[in-house]
Amino acid sequence: MHFSRFLLLLTAFLVISSLAFGQTPIPSNYDSLAQLIVREALGSNHSYTLLNDLVTNVGHRLSGSPGDAKAVAWAKITMERLGFANVRLEPVMVPKWVRGNVEEAFILHPDGKRENVKIAALGGSISTPKEGVTAGVVEVKSFEELRSLGAATKGKIVFFNRPMDRMLMHTFAGYGGAVNQRGRGAVEAAYAGGVAALIRSMTTRLDDVPHTGGMGYADSVNKVPAAAVSTVGAERLSALLKEGKNILLQIKLSAQSHPDVESANVLGELRGTEKPEEVIVIGGHLDSWDKGQGAHDDGAGCVHAIEALRILKHLGLQPKRTIRAVMFANEENGLRGGTAYAAQERPGEKHIAAIESDAGGFAPRAFGVSEPAYGKVLSWAPFFRNVGIDRIQRGGGGADIGPLMRKGVPGIGLVPEGHRYFDYHHSESDTIDKVNERELALGSAAMALMAWLIAQEGL
Amino acid sequence: MHFSRFLLLLTAFLVISSLAFGQTPIPSNYDSLAQLIVREALGSNHSYTLLNDLVTNVGHRLSGSPGDAKAVAWAKITMERLGFANVRLEPVMVPKWVRGNVEEAFILHPDGKRENVKIAALGGSISTPKEGVTAGVVEVKSFEELRSLGAATKGKIVFFNRPMDRMLMHTFAGYGGAVNQRGRGAVEAAYAGGVAALIRSMTTRLDDVPHTGGMGYADSVNKVPAAAVSTVGAERLSALLKEGKNILLQIKLSAQSHPDVESANVLGELRGTEKPEEVIVIGGHLDSWDKGQGAHDDGAGCVHAIEALRILKHLGLQPKRTIRAVMFANEENGLRGGTAYAAQERPGEKHIAAIESDAGGFAPRAFGVSEPAYGKVLSWAPFFRNVGIDRIQRGGGGADIGPLMRKGVPGIGLVPEGHRYFDYHHSESDTIDKVNERELALGSAAMALMAWLIAQEGL
Repeated sequence: MHFSRFLLLLTAFLVISSLAFGQTPIPSNYDSLAQLIVREALGSNHSYTLLNDLVTNVGHRLSGSPGDAKAVAWAKITMERLGFANVRLEPVMVPKWVRGNVEEAFILHPDGKRENVKIAALGGSISTPKEGVTAGVVEVKSFEELRSLGAATKGKIVFFNRPMDRMLMHTFAGYGGAVNQRGRGAVEAAYAGGVAALIRSMTTRLDDVPHTGGMGYADSVNKVPAAAVSTVGAERLSALLKEGKNILLQIKLSAQSHPDVESANVLGELRGTEKPEEVIVIGGHLDSWDKGQGAHDDGAGCVHAIEALRILKHLGLQPKRTIRAVMFANEENGLRGGTAYAAQERPGEKHIAAIESDAGGFAPRAFGVSEPAYGKVLSWAPFFRNVGIDRIQRGGGGADIGPLMRKGVPGIGLVPEGHRYFDYHHSESDTIDKVNERELALGSAAMALMAWLIAQEGL
Repeated sequence: MHFSRFLLLLTAFLVISSLAFGQTPIPSNYDSLAQLIVREALGSNHSYTLLNDLVTNVGHRLSGSPGDAKAVAWAKITMERLGFANVRLEPVMVPKWVRGNVEEAFILHPDGKRENVKIAALGGSISTPKEGVTAGVVEVKSFEELRSLGAATKGKIVFFNRPMDRMLMHTFAGYGGAVNQRGRGAVEAAYAGGVAALIRSMTTRLDDVPHTGGMGYADSVNKVPAAAVSTVGAERLSALLKEGKNILLQIKLSAQSHPDVESANVLGELRGTEKPEEVIVIGGHLDSWDKGQGAHDDGAGCVHAIEALRILKHLGLQPKRTIRAVMFANEENGLRGGTAYAAQERPGEKHIAAIESDAGGFAPRAFGVSEPAYGKVLSWAPFFRNVGIDRIQRGGGGADIGPLMRKGVPGIGLVPEGHRYFDYHHSESDTIDKVNERELALGSAAMALMAWLIAQEGL
């Protein structure tokens, strides 16, 4: 490594000296710059070091939990330690939902046998009575099917078992085609007279790990407990029902909602030298679900944003416009951080772009770009090939920057390779051993290059 | 899944009926065809089923080992079971090198402490004497440095410790920049009067898993034992040497070379309907190193090739030209299979292309294409986007199809995402749990589409 490090340092020195002597980088230099960014990202391995620090010292960090508070402190200290400017908290009130110790389900066979299936309460679910909910099960694939069943669903546990379509090339499209069951399943189950909602986990993988996630209730109907079941459990239950087995299901949950508590968005900057009032937001969300470590969702995105600033700073690059890393609070079950950030009055400031990474720490493949910024970003496509980005595609952004985008700020989303994302998403499998250090680092490099190009060229 | 399966079947029926009624597919249909291929690859998950079958029932399969013979039988039975035409073996004599039970190394400290470091004999290495080789260690980063040391290396163990450059975007470039130490280290060590060669494992990862691989001896100099050391072991050893610690290293290997034994290339086909004499070879290598399961290297490539034919056959597609799956023997330590395949006289046949997958079962990103086929394949780039291939790049092929390419046959190599490849390569870590089923399936889809386009359009 020593010889090649020497070469890097030499190259870096030559490039940075030319920058330091006041020459504005021109587009024809962006290829060399992109390569320097890649070498720093991969060579330092600092993205992985940061993520490891987060998951080891904080762990998972659901809004309002002790982990959430630790994560806010971690983000602030980390950005301060790296020498970012204007590191600060912007307080936000966030929901506090606590899973509790009990979440279990048993298939009760006619012969008295109790067969465990793996479940996880959905975020926001009420608890069951202490003795659980015990009832027959009605399996449906859609709300339409449920509604067509009439009185047959009364007093039953409604089992939503439409899988994510594994045949789709894009896993997020599969997710989009199934996730309404999780979001609205409890409401639909209650309208149908059901006593609980059980939802097949959102993954194309067949395994015994339940995947939690957000859900909602409606004021117009009673609340019923809602849980995700592992895909293995879903297949088992479905097979028994298809055989016409006379089974019951018992579900116990001890989840509880509490009053809102204070959390915060965490901000840090590289101040612009020429137009500091023009701000590029680059971020991920600091909160996670309370399973696993939130390594891909969205520890990776937080690291991408912090690391983008660190790399630029480390290379001695001072942007014309301000690049602001934002660790958003409460994406998973409220979006309070993104909403509060966009609602905040910021006199004298203008947001010219918002970049989000919230699709995991896998190898970067594309950026999705909202209109009307698409054309300009597309013109930079050749530079992005240096960081492993082969596509600039129309439409993009992220949940946290959604509120900014609705105020007219162009939104950009990093699109990493997506095939493994839902293997881990919202489950105990989302741990750092599922993150490849090189793939994570290249995501940081891609984000650094995007931020730099916008800072220098505008959007 | 049921509803979407129904839609698939309906779509498939409509497309295939139009094909069955004698209409030649025209390029404007290739997008739909590519999407059908993807849906079959992902929906059936058959690539993963096949790979699991191979690693479970065969396991690793070094040339000349019992696993190798089992793998040949597995490939033949598998292709017969899938209904391929002309399934047959073409016998090849292959080297037989056996690792034996002993491979260990200890750092011997002056105070008598013995500190284990993890090593693996390189393929082809001689054994040490039973009591091992015990000597002082000289660390070098290059052959030039070694040669400059003169008599200082006499009687020493030469420790080649130039890492794969982790800062390079392309891991195969990093590998290319370091692997001469493994291939020629033993020869250079012997020329320098050394008693053994110890080579830092070819990976950018820092872990305690040694990575084996091929190496060579020269007739002009004595043979010395050669082993790879884990990167953790290499760092430890290097640190002790830098501190000037008065240590010795003891290495014990029981590896042995035996006379050549018979193995075979395994072939199976979809016969061409219009020009059956024009053959497209599509393949991977059936042998692996004797560590792990050879899941990525190159179980994945074998599965990609078999699965490409199966998918086309399953969709009812009959190619104009013959598509021949070839499971090549002995890529890892001899290339006898690829050499024999190309040397075989095949009267009345003409090879028009050879496609290889030997870079792992990761998400496909590109095809590398040799001249003069590049232009034509590039014109198909839009179709390949449907299977996740964003780039058609100049230069490509694979070791096994190298001998065919040297006879003028255009060569094409699948280029999957490469960041994780050398984490597992040639080590006990190359197991099926490192393979994502969707990523593997898309590689098969990409290979199927490439084979089909060449079969229909020529090259």
